[in-house]
Amino acid sequence: MTESWQPIAQRKREERDSRIPKEWLLKTLPDDQRLNVLDVPRESGILTLEELRLTEQFDATALVAGLSNGLLKSVDVVTAFCKRAAIAQQVTNCLTEIIFDDAIARAKVLDDHFARTGEPVGPLHGLPISLKDTFKLKGYDASVGVTPFCFKPATINSALVDLLLSLGAVLYCKTNVPQTMAALDSHNNVFGRTFNPANRLLTAGGSSGGEGALIAMRGSVLGIGTDIGGSIRVPALANGLYGVKPSHGRVPYAGQEGGALPGTDKIMIEATAGPIATSQRDCEMLLRAICDAKPTALDPEVLSQTWVQQSSLRDGLVSGEPKLRVGIMRTDGHVTPLPPIQRLMDDVAKTLSTSSAGIEVVDVDVSTFGPACVKNFNGVMSIDGANTWFDILAKTGEPLSPWLSTRLKRRSQKSLNDVREIQAQRTELHTRFLDVWKESGGYWRSSTPSKGKSDRNLDLIICAGAPHPVAAIDRWNSTNYTSMFNLLDLPAGIMPVRTFSERDMQGEVTSTKPLNGWDKINREMWTDFDRKVYLGSALTIQVVAPRLEERRLVEGMTILDEVLKWLREGDGGKSKL
Amino acid sequence: MTESWQPIAQRKREERDSRIPKEWLLKTLPDDQRLNVLDVPRESGILTLEELRLTEQFDATALVAGLSNGLLKSVDVVTAFCKRAAIAQQVTNCLTEIIFDDAIARAKVLDDHFARTGEPVGPLHGLPISLKDTFKLKGYDASVGVTPFCFKPATINSALVDLLLSLGAVLYCKTNVPQTMAALDSHNNVFGRTFNPANRLLTAGGSSGGEGALIAMRGSVLGIGTDIGGSIRVPALANGLYGVKPSHGRVPYAGQEGGALPGTDKIMIEATAGPIATSQRDCEMLLRAICDAKPTALDPEVLSQTWVQQSSLRDGLVSGEPKLRVGIMRTDGHVTPLPPIQRLMDDVAKTLSTSSAGIEVVDVDVSTFGPACVKNFNGVMSIDGANTWFDILAKTGEPLSPWLSTRLKRRSQKSLNDVREIQAQRTELHTRFLDVWKESGGYWRSSTPSKGKSDRNLDLIICAGAPHPVAAIDRWNSTNYTSMFNLLDLPAGIMPVRTFSERDMQGEVTSTKPLNGWDKINREMWTDFDRKVYLGSALTIQVVAPRLEERRLVEGMTILDEVLKWLREGDGGKSKL
Repeated sequence: MTESWQPIAQRKREERDSRIPKEWLLKTLPDDQRLNVLDVPRESGILTLEELRLTEQFDATALVAGLSNGLLKSVDVVTAFCKRAAIAQQVTNCLTEIIFDDAIARAKVLDDHFARTGEPVGPLHGLPISLKDTFKLKGYDASVGVTPFCFKPATINSALVDLLLSLGAVLYCKTNVPQTMAALDSHNNVFGRTFNPANRLLTAGGSSGGEGALIAMRGSVLGIGTDIGGSIRVPALANGLYGVKPSHGRVPYAGQEGGALPGTDKIMIEATAGPIATSQRDCEMLLRAICDAKPTALDPEVLSQTWVQQSSLRDGLVSGEPKLRVGIMRTDGHVTPLPPIQRLMDDVAKTLSTSSAGIEVVDVDVSTFGPACVKNFNGVMSIDGANTWFDILAKTGEPLSPWLSTRLKRRSQKSLNDVREIQAQRTELHTRFLDVWKESGGYWRSSTPSKGKSDRNLDLIICAGAPHPVAAIDRWNSTNYTSMFNLLDLPAGIMPVRTFSERDMQGEVTSTKPLNGWDKINREMWTDFDRKVYLGSALTIQVVAPRLEERRLVEGMTILDEVLKWLREGDGGKSKL
Repeated sequence: MTESWQPIAQRKREERDSRIPKEWLLKTLPDDQRLNVLDVPRESGILTLEELRLTEQFDATALVAGLSNGLLKSVDVVTAFCKRAAIAQQVTNCLTEIIFDDAIARAKVLDDHFARTGEPVGPLHGLPISLKDTFKLKGYDASVGVTPFCFKPATINSALVDLLLSLGAVLYCKTNVPQTMAALDSHNNVFGRTFNPANRLLTAGGSSGGEGALIAMRGSVLGIGTDIGGSIRVPALANGLYGVKPSHGRVPYAGQEGGALPGTDKIMIEATAGPIATSQRDCEMLLRAICDAKPTALDPEVLSQTWVQQSSLRDGLVSGEPKLRVGIMRTDGHVTPLPPIQRLMDDVAKTLSTSSAGIEVVDVDVSTFGPACVKNFNGVMSIDGANTWFDILAKTGEPLSPWLSTRLKRRSQKSLNDVREIQAQRTELHTRFLDVWKESGGYWRSSTPSKGKSDRNLDLIICAGAPHPVAAIDRWNSTNYTSMFNLLDLPAGIMPVRTFSERDMQGEVTSTKPLNGWDKINREMWTDFDRKVYLGSALTIQVVAPRLEERRLVEGMTILDEVLKWLREGDGGKSKL
């Protein structure tokens, strides 16, 4: 042990804080009693009106359009987002690395290029993009919030960093994560906790929680997270944003700092990187830009398949058939969703099936399947017995964060035979799940049986991202609603539907006996809590597609977003149902 | 131990032999002194002239065309190939399961369907296809030549079997493999050895050696092999055929019998299935049919990408640029190719670079890279320590086959940490190899440097499939020329160029010291052998594409096949060079 953890953490925070220009510091921090801090940037006087407009009135797609035709200058856009990110940091503690100087300098270079050539550098020309701290950027730490990794600047760029830079993006900050990334709240001993800006009593989510809070504050318009059990989707859910976790192989993931020893991903489960954004089309824009940029040259695990080479929902459309067939999965069979989530799924199913968009809705019952996913996912995630993380933390004597301290234990590493068996079970689950998509597979309920002889298939599955509303700090319960799609390697996205209203406080748990300990704790989030804490929080759905069908996923989410958008009104669409 | 291995093997052989109709038995078997038995079917009098024509004058593409427009009847085609396969069995010992009765019955059903509807069932309507014994077909053994697996008929079909049946194929026989599949000669204690029909002193290759011999005999027009280190390509090479090993994820592999415990593929290396054929276009036809048949519904590891959704060599062609840029890899740096192989590569390079087809040829030097592949591949393949196979064989007391008995040993299983490190090294090799494709990567030699600022890329790499000619029985040396592309998960195909001629007997090893023990043994195949044994054997090249670019691979092989075909003349094209 060279230096103990406290002074390292202290110096790291000081380094970060010193990178915020003095003129961007709030004169007074909002009172702790103020739970919603989303309006602080507007109130601060730090951003000009034009900077407020740039950060609030555009999504990334609109910004790139302006940047690519010379209507906007990158230096203006990047400066505006740097300022707003600085404010977001002060009220939500969402940042780790602050890269404002380099970013503004790069923005000027890009503007000069455009002025000289009349051409954008690439499809992300001049666009500021924020990154989860796990990405490596030369010259900056990827400390992931643990002291042994502080003050060890990266000597390489992650593959996706190189790719984003080649497309013209401007990387201006990195964002907070939980210690070990294995928590759904973003708290660690170096940077502390990231707060949910809509309600600082609720979680900002994790492990890409810094991204979630930063984008909700509009301190970023587009961020890149990573996801091994829900780490893109949980922050998107907690902050009412759009987020897409692709299948492995779609987006470069090489060169991440995840605290794992090299090769671990090959014997456990592979995390993937993807967008968190304020609009659905921004997720599509980013994924398309990545797929079309020859990512195979940077990362050997990425597929050779441009965006248009992926299947589209428009492929094979038959006149008279529905344009979209979605399965509604109401429970995972492990933790029963609480009444407001059940109501949300009812509203969604009803709205979709009665819309004029040509959507067929089928109930799918995977309740016999979900618990097997929980078991297998726990097996996969415990292969290392957390030994690597305990060894890392021991270097500076850093303790576990409070939430982890009662949950993460050093256990013996699994044997090779155990790992083989876990992987065999995983493959079996993959195979079994193929039947969920097919009418003949035995999982469909409540649909009119097919008249033709050919088997019908679902395009997408809709389910909750969690069995409860946005949880209070450190109260997130089961991750199976998200992690089962990591286990199954299916692309999955979160999209906001509406906010939790007074009406959503109604409803009681009806069945008498909880399914298990997780289900019991989930109920307590409803029965033993003042439900008012959930008021105003985001209610979201998760959308899932067959493996590696990211294009169909985001096309489908765009259709769903359009149909469901009127549910987003203040009363939760109640009067319209 | 229930029953000892010898009577089981005896009964299994009797079962097989009993499935050949008496009228298809040769009146006299060719003398042991007769080395080339390719003409036995013509001489036998068992096939009608029309049956000889069907089995010799068509490739699979032509047969399917005839079957799909009603010019040919499946029952005639299938019967012809059953007869010819029966003869091939008698002279090369290539079959394991004989399925003639079921196949002919199915052919009649398909013919009836066509007669009734005027439509083929699918793109492989009525086409006989042979399968390596590792495929499972309900009701038939997948014994893979070991006694403990005999008389245990499969209760499921392999995923690819279901897919081929759905496309209209007729499955009529399965073919021999080496014991444990871990040999390059196809010998086992149940069925014995498969012989190379062009020269019974040379190997038929393995592990899909039964396919190689059967197709060389034209007892099959199209077969499916599997490949984990060369098992499609080595038999293609040994028998002068076309064979393509795809990347993992392109062709369904689920439900194979490989003797491994479930989940082993996830911690070792994944085998893949692919075609062996008598024409290049048949490889393309089969891969296209599979990719276009929604294979994702049958196997969760297969990609969602139809044939036209894969990149084509025609994509992004620039006027004035070469249509194809190939790298010639002359050695793997582990075993130096013998003089005839070096000469073949010289001939190929010269022919390609001087052709009018617009092909740019670049020498690539991976000699620093190859040995690392050998080490990592050996690591990957020894993870299980052969324990599973030894446990299986112990059930009947079956001994190792002679070749394996001095090579395969029960060793302790590797630890999880070792496996992680092996997999990490493998990923590093994948990443390093990305540079081989790029002009800027440091592996290119002898090319004119690019004038433009953009990095040039290779479309394909050409190298030998082995550092020696087709080996004598049980003499195959290093597998690195094939196995490195399993390790790297790159699609790779073998195509015949010409046959070994008198001229090829010339040339001596020039460097004084062998690189290592493998290189020494390789030289002995030249210095300590009567080189006449190689006369008339196939000289082939291997063609390699970037990962999952099967379409570009087969398109490129088609171009190369066209340019190189005049080298195929009797004198090895000598007079024309």
